[in-house]
Amino acid sequence: MTEPKRIAVTGAAGQICYSMLFRIAAGDIYGPDQPVTLQLLEITPALDLLNAVKMELDDCAFPLLHDVVCTDDPKVALQGVDAALFVGAKPRGPGMERSDLIADNGKIFSSLGKILNEVGSPDCKVVVVGNPANTNAFILKANAPNIDPRNITALTRLDHNRAASQLAAKAGAKVADVNRMIIWGNHSTTQVPDVSHATIGGKPALDRVDAGWAIDEFVPMIATRGAAVIKARGSSSAASAANGTIDHMATWIQGTQGGDWTSMAVTSDGSYGIEEGLVYSFPVRCKGGDWEIVQGLDVSDAIGEKMKTSERELVDERDTVKDLLPS
Amino acid sequence: MTEPKRIAVTGAAGQICYSMLFRIAAGDIYGPDQPVTLQLLEITPALDLLNAVKMELDDCAFPLLHDVVCTDDPKVALQGVDAALFVGAKPRGPGMERSDLIADNGKIFSSLGKILNEVGSPDCKVVVVGNPANTNAFILKANAPNIDPRNITALTRLDHNRAASQLAAKAGAKVADVNRMIIWGNHSTTQVPDVSHATIGGKPALDRVDAGWAIDEFVPMIATRGAAVIKARGSSSAASAANGTIDHMATWIQGTQGGDWTSMAVTSDGSYGIEEGLVYSFPVRCKGGDWEIVQGLDVSDAIGEKMKTSERELVDERDTVKDLLPS
Repeated sequence: MTEPKRIAVTGAAGQICYSMLFRIAAGDIYGPDQPVTLQLLEITPALDLLNAVKMELDDCAFPLLHDVVCTDDPKVALQGVDAALFVGAKPRGPGMERSDLIADNGKIFSSLGKILNEVGSPDCKVVVVGNPANTNAFILKANAPNIDPRNITALTRLDHNRAASQLAAKAGAKVADVNRMIIWGNHSTTQVPDVSHATIGGKPALDRVDAGWAIDEFVPMIATRGAAVIKARGSSSAASAANGTIDHMATWIQGTQGGDWTSMAVTSDGSYGIEEGLVYSFPVRCKGGDWEIVQGLDVSDAIGEKMKTSERELVDERDTVKDLLPS
Repeated sequence: MTEPKRIAVTGAAGQICYSMLFRIAAGDIYGPDQPVTLQLLEITPALDLLNAVKMELDDCAFPLLHDVVCTDDPKVALQGVDAALFVGAKPRGPGMERSDLIADNGKIFSSLGKILNEVGSPDCKVVVVGNPANTNAFILKANAPNIDPRNITALTRLDHNRAASQLAAKAGAKVADVNRMIIWGNHSTTQVPDVSHATIGGKPALDRVDAGWAIDEFVPMIATRGAAVIKARGSSSAASAANGTIDHMATWIQGTQGGDWTSMAVTSDGSYGIEEGLVYSFPVRCKGGDWEIVQGLDVSDAIGEKMKTSERELVDERDTVKDLLPS
């Protein structure tokens, strides 16, 4: 039998994971021929609920699901994994400042980074979903020097998918015909959804939608879509966040298709003037389990200014957590 | 483009559907090359929540998802569908007798059957998930004479998957190596999980597990597994029920593999002495979008007696709803 891939998932008894784990077990990340072992992490009070999730995973008789480990010990969950999906994070409580949220989650990701550094495989692929995702990934990376920094990423694929869908709706097109969408920057309200290079059926999207709309309406619509879903649903997006995470990993592993690209928050190499080392969302092409930032795209003044704003936010977030970074 | 398959789903804002719709949109029923349109039905008070589900479906940018219709009108939801998944049902309230539950749901499925008869395609494939599933399917069938009765089925695949998983665990085997499990009868506590013909790695399961265990412990364990999940999880199984429904439809459409079979509640043709016309779970092989009951299996006295008990329960349920059957 093919050796199973080991996938660690944190916050595994939460709602995003309830929408995600069954899809991973069905083969949605590694494909229909690759067995997987799930190494699921939760805080101790949530272990009973996590064991109930395991009961249901068992009840699906997934042929590809080799094993399910439930634990409250990060060393067990992260041991020898091929992929690690950091979904769990402390949510923002009432009256809590964003800087407090960043600092609290910073502590969690600093600790997880040290453990990943100790027990993780150097080439394991990491995506951070829990917010503030980019800065959590930055802290993880700083605390896990044994892991190839190219393998530590944060999720903006949900934003990317939302942007593709809303562009298609505006243009009266099918989302399957939309390519080359871009999300630049931080997974926050400063993110920069950019249709400048997007195509619909191979032709420029800006032939179908107004350039003013693309800046004045589209950008804030995508940046605040999460809040709109919370308002409609009464709780934050779960199934679509799970789907974005699956897409992020599947595209990274299986590659982008044809001339298309995707958006991933990765460590900046200075491309497009973004400070080296920041975890920033770029358009990337994936092949053979690796990614590269798409180079040479024209950036308009309006988009470039927003990209700088998002960069400054990430610098501020980094300053908030500077005590958690190894000197 | 390939013409999209239209799939109606009832109770579409509920928890089972929240675990199911995103997998259907990802291609888990009709495969990776077949676009689908979702025609989602809910009661009027749940339409806002259903629209929030649609927002998240949009936010996934599924390339195969052609369209999503949200409605409280069964005529709109069932119009011209290729498949209909009846997930919604009135749940059992406190102090409610099972006979009341059956009668109340009987009214719902009598009405839905008449509408399906009017607007449904004659060869549309129906699975009833909402309980009492077998009798709901029986009522639907009685009220929809235009639909080929072979195409009206009820779900026992969740029980089948649970049984395969528990047999594998008991034998210390992988669930992927378990074949030829059977669930006979009603999707209720009278169901008959039967390992007599099951194989593990091609060899008789009864070489690996004790025949006494298979009757005395295994049968009640599977029949009460739903209650065990509710106890552990604090709510009824959702993701595993969704998975069973997807497996049921995918196997029906794409076929059983090799010498294996599955379990589906279908209209009895008198096989194994079960009264003709009852919707009863049998081992079936699927090919070319059709199914046939596996014939000629030996049935032990212990299993045969339980099969009769489950048959009698279905006859009783039919008597409870006899006023809802066209004369």
